[in-house]
Parts: sequence; C-alpha cells; structure tokens
Amino acid sequence: MQNNEQKYLDPQPTTERIRYIPIGGLGEVGKNMYVVEYGEDIIIVDVGMGFPEDEMLGIDLVLPDISYLEGKQDRIRGICITHGHEDHIGGLPWLLPQINAPIYGTPLTLGLITNKLKERGLLAEADLREVQAGDTVTLGAFKVEFVHVCHSIPDACLLAIHTPIGTIVHTGDFKLDPTPADGYLTDYQTLGRLGQEGVLALFTDCVHVETPGYTPSEQVVAKTLGPIVDNASGRVIIATFASLISRVQQIFDIGYKYGRKVALLGRSLENNVQVAVELGYLYIPEGLLVSVADTARLHDNEVLVICTGAQGEPTSALSRIANDDSRYWNAKPGDTYILSATPIPGNETSVGRVINNLFTKGAEVIYPPLAQVHVSGHASQEEHKLLLGLLRPKYVIPIHGERRHLEMYAKIASAPGVGIPRANIFLIDNGYVIELNSDEAYVAGRVPSGNVFVDGLSVGGIGHVVIRDRQLLARDGVLLVVVTIDKQTGHLVAGPDIVTRGFVYAAEAGELLDDTKTRVRDALNHNNSNTPADWNYLNKKIRDTVSQYLYDKTKRRPMVLPVVMEV
Amino acid sequence: MQNNEQKYLDPQPTTERIRYIPIGGLGEVGKNMYVVEYGEDIIIVDVGMGFPEDEMLGIDLVLPDISYLEGKQDRIRGICITHGHEDHIGGLPWLLPQINAPIYGTPLTLGLITNKLKERGLLAEADLREVQAGDTVTLGAFKVEFVHVCHSIPDACLLAIHTPIGTIVHTGDFKLDPTPADGYLTDYQTLGRLGQEGVLALFTDCVHVETPGYTPSEQVVAKTLGPIVDNASGRVIIATFASLISRVQQIFDIGYKYGRKVALLGRSLENNVQVAVELGYLYIPEGLLVSVADTARLHDNEVLVICTGAQGEPTSALSRIANDDSRYWNAKPGDTYILSATPIPGNETSVGRVINNLFTKGAEVIYPPLAQVHVSGHASQEEHKLLLGLLRPKYVIPIHGERRHLEMYAKIASAPGVGIPRANIFLIDNGYVIELNSDEAYVAGRVPSGNVFVDGLSVGGIGHVVIRDRQLLARDGVLLVVVTIDKQTGHLVAGPDIVTRGFVYAAEAGELLDDTKTRVRDALNHNNSNTPADWNYLNKKIRDTVSQYLYDKTKRRPMVLPVVMEV
Repeated sequence: MQNNEQKYLDPQPTTERIRYIPIGGLGEVGKNMYVVEYGEDIIIVDVGMGFPEDEMLGIDLVLPDISYLEGKQDRIRGICITHGHEDHIGGLPWLLPQINAPIYGTPLTLGLITNKLKERGLLAEADLREVQAGDTVTLGAFKVEFVHVCHSIPDACLLAIHTPIGTIVHTGDFKLDPTPADGYLTDYQTLGRLGQEGVLALFTDCVHVETPGYTPSEQVVAKTLGPIVDNASGRVIIATFASLISRVQQIFDIGYKYGRKVALLGRSLENNVQVAVELGYLYIPEGLLVSVADTARLHDNEVLVICTGAQGEPTSALSRIANDDSRYWNAKPGDTYILSATPIPGNETSVGRVINNLFTKGAEVIYPPLAQVHVSGHASQEEHKLLLGLLRPKYVIPIHGERRHLEMYAKIASAPGVGIPRANIFLIDNGYVIELNSDEAYVAGRVPSGNVFVDGLSVGGIGHVVIRDRQLLARDGVLLVVVTIDKQTGHLVAGPDIVTRGFVYAAEAGELLDDTKTRVRDALNHNNSNTPADWNYLNKKIRDTVSQYLYDKTKRRPMVLPVVMEV
Repeated sequence: MQNNEQKYLDPQPTTERIRYIPIGGLGEVGKNMYVVEYGEDIIIVDVGMGFPEDEMLGIDLVLPDISYLEGKQDRIRGICITHGHEDHIGGLPWLLPQINAPIYGTPLTLGLITNKLKERGLLAEADLREVQAGDTVTLGAFKVEFVHVCHSIPDACLLAIHTPIGTIVHTGDFKLDPTPADGYLTDYQTLGRLGQEGVLALFTDCVHVETPGYTPSEQVVAKTLGPIVDNASGRVIIATFASLISRVQQIFDIGYKYGRKVALLGRSLENNVQVAVELGYLYIPEGLLVSVADTARLHDNEVLVICTGAQGEPTSALSRIANDDSRYWNAKPGDTYILSATPIPGNETSVGRVINNLFTKGAEVIYPPLAQVHVSGHASQEEHKLLLGLLRPKYVIPIHGERRHLEMYAKIASAPGVGIPRANIFLIDNGYVIELNSDEAYVAGRVPSGNVFVDGLSVGGIGHVVIRDRQLLARDGVLLVVVTIDKQTGHLVAGPDIVTRGFVYAAEAGELLDDTKTRVRDALNHNNSNTPADWNYLNKKIRDTVSQYLYDKTKRRPMVLPVVMEV
C-alpha cells in the first residue's frame, strides 16, 4: 500500500514510538479488533466478530487472528471496548480463555458483555471494570479517556489514548447526531479540548463516507414510523437490530402514544432489552410490554411487535415468519411489516425474499428507501469534516471501512478547506503496523492478521484447505470409486463401485456411471504386470481417468475420491 | 394469490377465451418466457435464461420449465422475441431442439440470436423471420403487432397481440426515454391508436416501479462520462453490459470527441459490437476502433477501453483485471475504471470486491451512485402512469418483477387519478394461467412451471436432490467410512478407514478420527451373532453412529458415506 511498508519492524518494546495495528475485520480494515503498544504496555481496543461471506461455506462466524499477541500476554494492560455491538464485543468469549485482561467499558457495554459471557459460562473469570464516559483509566503508560459519541447504540465512546509521545484518537463507530433519540449529544467540548491540546493521529470509522452531507438524526425514524403505526388498521411488526436500543426506545414510545401494547420476538432482542432496562438505558411504562402470546387476546390495532431479522438472516424471527416457520407468530392479511434497516451488502437477496414472502401472505410491507424507516449509525462526509475540524490531527488513518471507503475518506480529508496533507493520510490493511513518534508516522511493516473461522464448536480447525474443499464439493459434488485389488498381483478383484452425491442424480445417470466403471476397469487392467499394487499410483490413476472422462462427458468436475481396498 | 386460482383449468382448446401464462423467471414473475393461447393456436413470447442464485451451488444457468408445452408442439405458430437481451433470448439454444417454430424479431434481435445459434451449431435448422417495428405478423388466429419502445438495447418492441376476442399488450422491457441515445422514440402514436381501439389487458414490465418519477434518459450517461474521460490523464476503462449497444455507441462517440482510440475487452462484447455494426445499429468512425494489444503503443491519455464485467462476474474481463488474472490487461496507477452499471441484487459483494481491488492497484474507480454513470433501462412510476394513460387497458397484470414490485405496481395503477380498479389488477406467479374473454379476466389455474438447472453440458439432470446434496456437502463436507465385512459372519475383517474432505483438516484431527473409528468398530462388533451381513443395516448403523458422535463432538454434520465391502 504505502511505499514504506517494507520498513524494518523492530520486535523490541520501546518508548520511542507508539505502535497501532488493526488486527481483524472481514473485508474491512480493522472494525473487529485493534492493538496499541507503547513501551512494555499493550492495550487491546474492541474484540468483535464478523459474519461469514457467501463463499465461506459452512462457517458460523469469523474471529480476528490473534497470533500476533502470542507470548505478549504479560504486557497486555487492558481491553477497552468502545460500544456494545457484536462486531466490537462478539469475539470476547473466544479471546478470554487465552488472554484474560481487565475489560473496560461503559455500563451498557459491560451489561451486554455480561450477558454474552454468562451464556458461555465465562463470567466468573472475567474482570469487568466499569467506566463512565468522561473517565480516564491508566493502563501502564497509557491514559485512556472515554469520550461520549453518538451511534446507533447508547453509551458509545471514542477513545483518546494519551501517551508520553502524544495523543491518538480512536473513534470506534460514530455519527454526530444533532438530536439523538436519548438526548445525549456527542461530547463536543472534550473533542475541542483534545484538538486544542493536540492530536497526533486520528484513527477513524469511515464506512459511511460515500454518503454526502450529514447522516439524518435517529429521531427521523420515529417521525416516519409514528404515522405508519397510527394509520395501520391491523397489527404492526417492526424488524430491526437487537442492539439498536435507541430505535427500540422510540418504538416503545410510539406504541405508548398510539395505544398499542408492545411485544418482543427474538432471543437476542429480549436479552438486550432486559439489560438495557435494568441499567436504565431503556424506559418502558408499566403495562406496555406484553408477551407475544398475550397479543392474541388484543385487537389487531392494539398490537405492536419488535422483532429481529431485518437483514433476512435465515434463522431470525422475521425470516421464520415469512416462511411460515415461526412457533410464535403467523403473518396474516392486514398486518404491516416494517423493515427498519438497510440491507448490509450481500444480504439484499435474502431481505428481498423476506419482503416478497410477506407480500404473498397479503401483508403490507414497508422498507427503505420507500420510506425513511432507517438511518445509519455512521458519519457522512460533512460529519467527518466537522470531526477533523474539532480535533485537527496531524496524521489521519481511516479504519473500519473497505478500501473504497478509505480512498473516499482520503479524498474528503485532503480536499481544499479540510486540508489534511495527503502524505499524512495512511491507507492500510489489516495487520499493517502504523508507528508514530512525535516527528513522523509511517507503516513499519506487517504482522500476522486475518480471519479465523468458527464452525460448530471448533475455532481455527477450519483452514483454507477445508473451505476450498467445501467449495469444490459445492460446485459439482463428490464421486467415490471403490475397488478391491489383489495385494500380490495388483489385479482388480472386485468393483469398481461408484457412490456419488451432488454430481448427477444417480438414478438417471446409469449409463454415464456404467461407462465410468468400464473406464476404470480398463485403466486398471491395462496394468498387467503382476506386480504388487502401488497404492499412490492406483489412486492417481483412478482419479485422473475418472476426472478426465467425466469432464469430457459433462463439463463438470466432481471431487473424485478413490477407495482402494487390498486383499 | 387471487381467490379464484382454483377455478377449473379446461384443457381443451377453445376460441372462447385467451389464455396467458408466464412460464419462467428466476425470482420474478415471467421475464424469461410466456405462452399465449387462443383456440388451436399458441405463440411463445421470449425464450430467456436466468443466472443462478447463491444457493444454487454449481449451477451455470437456469432455464424455464417447458413441460407445459409437451404434446402441444403442433399448435405452436411462432416465437416472438421482444428484444435481444440474454434474459429474453438466452434459452433459445435449449428450446429449439425440442420446439422448432419460426422465430420473429427485429433485425438487431435476430442478429444477436444468429450469433448465439451459430456458436451452438443450431443456425441451420432455425427459421428466423425478420420483422420491422410497425409490422404485424399473422400467427394462426393471432395478429402480432411489433411496436417500438425504448430500452437499454436498440430495436426493442412491445407486442400488441390482436385476437378475435380483443387485444392484449405485452410490453417486454421498456422505458419511455424522451431523448434516447439513438434518437428513436417510443412509438407513442401507435400506443395511442391501440388505446383508442381498446386494450383488453396489459401485461407490463414492472421491475423498476419502486422508483418515483421518470427514469433518466440514456443521454444523461454520456453527459457524466464525457467530462470524466476528458479530465482523466491516464487510460480510461469503462465496464458495462455487452448488450447495452446504445451505451457502447455513446462511449465510442466520447472516445472520438476527446481524441482517444477505443478497444473492446470481452468476447460477448466483441461479438455484439460486430453484429450491431454489420446491421447498422452502431456507427464507428474509421480508425477509431483498435485492438487491446494496440493500446500499448498509444499514450495513456489516448486509450479508452470498453469491457464486460460491471456486475463483478468472476470470469469477466473486469474481474480478471482486478485480480491480476487478465492475459490482455494490467491495471496500473493512473488508470480510471468506470463501472457503468448498478449491481443487480445479490452482486453487491462481488462488485464491491472488484472496486476495492482496483483501488488497491492505485487506480481511480468511479461507480454509482457516486456519479451518474448508469441509468436503468426500465420505466419508473410516472412512465407507468403514462403508459396506462395511452393504452387505457381494462385489465392489468404486472409481470417481470418480484412480488414486491407487483404490489407496488398495483398501488400505483389503482391510485386516484390513474384509476385502474384494484379488482382488475391481477398479481400472479409463474405458471398461473390468466384467462380472458371479452367480459372478464380471471386466474384459471396453474400449470407446471419453474426452473430447470443447467450445469456443464446437461440440462435438467440436476434436480433439487442434487442441489440439496451440494448444500449439505458445502456446509460441513464429506466423510467416508470404509469397512470390509466377512460375507458369511458379518464380522469386521478390515478397517474402518476414514477419508474426509471439507470437514476438518484431517492432519490436525487425528484423535477425533481415531475415536470415530473406535466407535464404528464397537458398533459393528456388537453384532456378534455370526449371521450374514445385511448391507442396508450396516450402512445405517455406521452412518448413525458416526453422525451422532461427530455432532456431539463438533456440532457439525458432515455427509457420512459408508463404504461396505464384503469378502
């Protein structure tokens, strides 16, 4: 990326520079986890997880590769969490058994982490330390100041990380909402103070930078949802993210205003609401919340349901409803479904399917961009300019974005009037090490980083070999060729038999499979030398013969697995 | 869908009603193929193909299921093609060997069909009959009038299908471009005449109906592209669809205007351009077109390339360039890549990857919505209202859209001021039969329809069983358990051996696989009765034992294939 990436990466701890490394983030730089080093001290920022992309077949979730931290456990002073979203806290259950450092976060963030750790039986060992926005915690040579920012979850913070060399600011996810739903503004005063004191480098969320102007306020959603709920004559079901506590509050408020009881559908949503209520981040008037079962006893126009699944996730509440597969809820004509979310790239097809299926049931469906029933939690172009104006950083490193977002951010930040010199903006990838001293910043090298796949119970046992095999199997299936060979002579004693799955419908492909057997028989009998069987040779011979023949006949390449038995 | 869908579908030909059936279209109603019947006469409208969705693993393309036409070949009077896009002509090479009726289309449409049939050696048998927009052809009792409409390919037509009972209009794909790039307006006069004469039913493209207002004119694209090309100091590469002949013409014009030679990259693009030039639909000034190899001898600011792959298709020219895998072209800093297309839902991730990779090479990348470098070829809301005003149809059946689009179309068409009675608008699915007489329209029943998968050379051999197996294989891989059994006693003689792919990385899972073998051995030795082996029983025993054990240990479910050899 930058030309100086080959610079020598000094493995020794030193107080001469700060080292900053985005460790993981699927398709994006950073997002899930970061490491910051100074002298002997290391802090980790966020420990999130990602959801697999389409071609990561059979994978349940994706974690950052933490091998860079191996052998450095003693130097880790703490884990600072910016906010309680899955992509920032979801990796903790996998990290803690290996690296058990104190975890710092605001009350709601820790509440959501507590839930997660409890589920996995890891809460007892975890060392959770609550901070309030405005607090500064000392972690070795670092003083980490938590500064409130707006985002689509309450209690989000950016981190001002003070070191003897200078202050770096890591934004986490943010927007500069002028009228946040919870009334809790971004702490502009502290940002201004940090700018005045001097910010050496800004590491900033840039994922929404392709959008001009300002991201609309979260309150806009309530303004759209209110009249829709008011006008609906039947039940209203609003799908959103389980973690959008501010959105959930607004929906409760709307239910109260228009005389509807509110029910929750989806386990993660119920858990999050419970935590938020207990900690005082969500206020539900007495009697407003009912169970989904209770809604059956209400008139349809007294029912408002919040559910998960706005991304069309196949096992979510909304997908189950759309597929007539929910134990709790049947869609019916007269219902109004509102998708209060924009599909994340890659989810458009499954979201579209949910919409189509709900329409087919005679329901009304409302979704963006047809109505503004969702706003982003991330800053648009003008907000980025405002943050740069407040902080006036010397160096800027956009993170939490794809390459296209980093490029757009660099254009915005270096434009006339904004004026960060282009040479002071670094576009990096996961594992790239930014080193900073008071005079300069540079890419110092690269460390191991990447994705660790989780499938079922196991972490990491799934490597690229396994994924690659799944892709091959998925394309044209598998075909076993079973033969029994005389150990002494190498002659065919029994078989070949063929077993195939996912290649052709075997019942209709008798001729093709019979011809394949003949080819194998010919190929093996050709070897008439009466020499003992060479297992490797036979394997390769069978595989090559069958693969070539099937490709000629069908233009497909099933995975051919020879099974050679010797007697 | 409609309540009367269960009405008896009379299998006998009759002159008392017209029958209209959308036969195929992946996720959309119609789009690929339609059947219209009256008395003994049948016409087919369009014979397209679809591209597989993500979960259709290993499938190359998808064809309409034509089993409804079996035994009706003698009644088919002709195949009318509305325009030359793949999703309207791409199924012809598979249809013609089964149903060889005369094919009617405008010159460009037939030119593109000719190319396609030539490639497959099918041209000699095909009976291609050229029509000009404005012509009417008599096909049995049908008089089919071809009426010019604007779309993203020249020479597109809607069909006014005149019958003794009344006229039905089938739009094909259309927009009402006020200033088409080729200057050839939609034939409003004829549409007005049809409206005056009376239209019994309108079957209309509705895929872009979620967009308010009017679709921008194709000329808008040139207005955006011109300055970008003018200002670029290096090479410019514009990716678009091979069939967007009007777009291609505009790009040639821009090359000419700004002193750049134009080269083509992508086989389908080269073929289409050749056909369009030969037929006079594309004008290229002498010396403007060069080969890609020739561009190496030009200054960078004299080079303009048109390539395929704007949808991120993995084997397309643009994807290969982005992945350093093109034999013809290497991306370099200073290049400007323009994606003159909007991702089709489902393609966002692969398009995003192409954009990111091009940026990583130091190139500039421009794509919608950051610049208006693409416009749709389909009508927006106001154009639909205009068409309804021109034709004043009695019944309206939106086709060529997902369920969400049909619903939105029904809202637009039945709104005050547009005023089609909601009861006269039918929302149907593939295979639904609309019957019309002069008094009424209704859904008469349902006929076989759906998708036929093409994988490699074979059509239809791939059914849902095979796709399902591929999905299972893709999720957790495959595991073979190979045992040799004494035929007389049923005792284990050799094995079990285990071969696995796509499940675990076998080299690291020795213990798990050893334990699995022990389980199999225990399960089989438990059967100590000295009775001959029952193959089915052994198979099931092995499969159940292994599946259960592996699920307990890993929470994964590989496909377990027992291989039982008897000696």
